[in-house]
Amino acid sequence: MKKVPVKKVLILLSGGVDSSTALAKAIADGCEAIALSVSYGQKHIKEIKAAENIAGYYKIPLKKIDLNAVFADSDCSLLSGSNREIPLESYAEQIEKTGGKTPVSTYVPFRNGLFISAAAAVAISNGCTAVIYGAHADDSAGNAYPDCSPEFFAAMNEALKTGGNITLEAPFINMNKAQIVELGLRLGVPYDLTWSCYYGGETPCGKCGTCIDRANAFNIAYKIRGKNND
Amino acid sequence: MKKVPVKKVLILLSGGVDSSTALAKAIADGCEAIALSVSYGQKHIKEIKAAENIAGYYKIPLKKIDLNAVFADSDCSLLSGSNREIPLESYAEQIEKTGGKTPVSTYVPFRNGLFISAAAAVAISNGCTAVIYGAHADDSAGNAYPDCSPEFFAAMNEALKTGGNITLEAPFINMNKAQIVELGLRLGVPYDLTWSCYYGGETPCGKCGTCIDRANAFNIAYKIRGKNND
Repeated sequence: MKKVPVKKVLILLSGGVDSSTALAKAIADGCEAIALSVSYGQKHIKEIKAAENIAGYYKIPLKKIDLNAVFADSDCSLLSGSNREIPLESYAEQIEKTGGKTPVSTYVPFRNGLFISAAAAVAISNGCTAVIYGAHADDSAGNAYPDCSPEFFAAMNEALKTGGNITLEAPFINMNKAQIVELGLRLGVPYDLTWSCYYGGETPCGKCGTCIDRANAFNIAYKIRGKNND
Repeated sequence: MKKVPVKKVLILLSGGVDSSTALAKAIADGCEAIALSVSYGQKHIKEIKAAENIAGYYKIPLKKIDLNAVFADSDCSLLSGSNREIPLESYAEQIEKTGGKTPVSTYVPFRNGLFISAAAAVAISNGCTAVIYGAHADDSAGNAYPDCSPEFFAAMNEALKTGGNITLEAPFINMNKAQIVELGLRLGVPYDLTWSCYYGGETPCGKCGTCIDRANAFNIAYKIRGKNND
């Protein structure tokens, strides 16, 4: 007998580790899921391709929207219109330079606010009762990405509730990336299909902030699993 | 001597009465203003044209963004992809039918959340410290447009502050449309350049919710002005 889904949800799916794990968790929790992937002018399309592969793996519908135009005037280093270089250092090193006073150069202005709002519109139109996004504690540390902070999450949740009668969920808001990976490994997330590197090369560069963080998270997660299997 | 602007702000400019008055007020308050006009799949482009004319009148830069794709799955009666008719009755009559429990059929899902988020991204990229939008008390009455309510405004303001270090202003949130028009008449807003009607005919239909509300607001505003001039 086919199980009745707990609820229908929309996952913001970037094709990276966090959002792919959020999708796996929603499915494991018994939700019916659809996914939304947003182009915003990033320098490569590897992550959109990864989102397609992840959605294909889980056999769920993937909606794709192009919001490039919104960031036409931004000089964020991630965007194809910017001449700024993507820093080849960890977030911790970048935060040390900013003193936690300004976002890192890969902060796309109010990106998550825009993505969550677009997701809410698509979710309401498709009969979903929640939007899920993969923000986690490491992202907002040192004010690197203020639109991943618990305060921002709470405000957007309230905005979605009052303006659209829909809820926002950030299941990893108090977890770090290693804990997310550890959960994902248990859930069997096909991490080989995900893409994190800010550069769009054949293989990940291994040197940008997100590559470094991904590698660290996997190292720690494997250690946790090793310990638990003792 | 040229005055130094109080601050640089971005106005969400639909080309209607409320946002045009919000722009006039910002300029009267000494702000440097830029405007943003959003296409969202509406059945006609009269309001974009009106926004261009208003921005031209005030000699300020107007940015235009197309967010049609976000509402591809919505059945809101305002959208060109929908077969639903735009109701030819006042908001009060529509609210009586919904019992105040659901938004009116011209509610575009989470539209203001999306517009404000896009505005925040553009504003940050252009060095503005505030986003201004023209939501007012009549819009949110009877839950017609939940994304015009004071609760929604407060939540979005908090989201912009925490996620983008920028503020959201809704100078008319506690005013009705007649009070806005009365202010606009004092500020010399060129209302002949604005467009309110949900239909895109040669002249306004006079029968849709927004035509009826506009006419009522002007009638009351002229009466207030008449009295004050006694």
